[in-house]
Amino acid sequence: MKRAALMLGAGIVLAGTALAWRQSRAESGAAPKEGLMVRIAVLEIDPAQLDAYKAILREEQEASVRLEPGVMMLHSVQFANDPTQIRLLEVYASRAAYEAHIRSPHFIKYKTSTERMVRSLELVPTDPILLCAKSRGRAGGPMTCL
Amino acid sequence: MKRAALMLGAGIVLAGTALAWRQSRAESGAAPKEGLMVRIAVLEIDPAQLDAYKAILREEQEASVRLEPGVMMLHSVQFANDPTQIRLLEVYASRAAYEAHIRSPHFIKYKTSTERMVRSLELVPTDPILLCAKSRGRAGGPMTCL
Repeated sequence: MKRAALMLGAGIVLAGTALAWRQSRAESGAAPKEGLMVRIAVLEIDPAQLDAYKAILREEQEASVRLEPGVMMLHSVQFANDPTQIRLLEVYASRAAYEAHIRSPHFIKYKTSTERMVRSLELVPTDPILLCAKSRGRAGGPMTCL
Repeated sequence: MKRAALMLGAGIVLAGTALAWRQSRAESGAAPKEGLMVRIAVLEIDPAQLDAYKAILREEQEASVRLEPGVMMLHSVQFANDPTQIRLLEVYASRAAYEAHIRSPHFIKYKTSTERMVRSLELVPTDPILLCAKSRGRAGGPMTCL
């Protein structure tokens, strides 16, 4: 009985510690990386259609992060020495969030309207090491790490 | 006089519009992209030292975004099919912020302690198209776009 009580006691302490740790992470804006789906998209765009492509891409990124609870980040850049080379860092809360994203009206609009602008597309699955950002961009704010 | 008054009036209206636009962007957490320095780092790490490298990298990312006002994001990932291939997306508020970053004690510690772990390093200058994230990660929060 004494041993069982000790084990039970240890279990409660461990559960309490885990809860405190989760609360501490939640307070600091951090969250576990488990379940995240993180990917790099490697694109080459037809130079004659680059401006049009970027406008459609921006609209899609903005709508996705604003409207979809599971789309956590969409960052797009173009190479300084070759602007037709575009890279995206895509962070979804889960595989299910990604599946919902590709069924969204704004993603379908992006995909169909840019189909003839994209010369090549490679999707590179990745595992996040650490994703850290100031929560309010230039305005600073507490750091959020995933 | 009338024309000068009209021009002055138009100037005030324009200034007012610009101010309202800036306030609106500030309230939405957005900020202009002008001046940002955004880069992709392409690294290959010695597989025997990968875990040690990742621990040092995480520490450096966390310290940089937390302590430096001009380090806005540092995101690191590794390829799922080759974990020695690491990519970073680095976002600094300005060139000056980047120069300050590479003089910081935590960056110098990272650089010296990982020197013999890094098999290759390529730094790719980029221009941001759009950088959008939920401000509190999994906890949601208003969207921040740069």
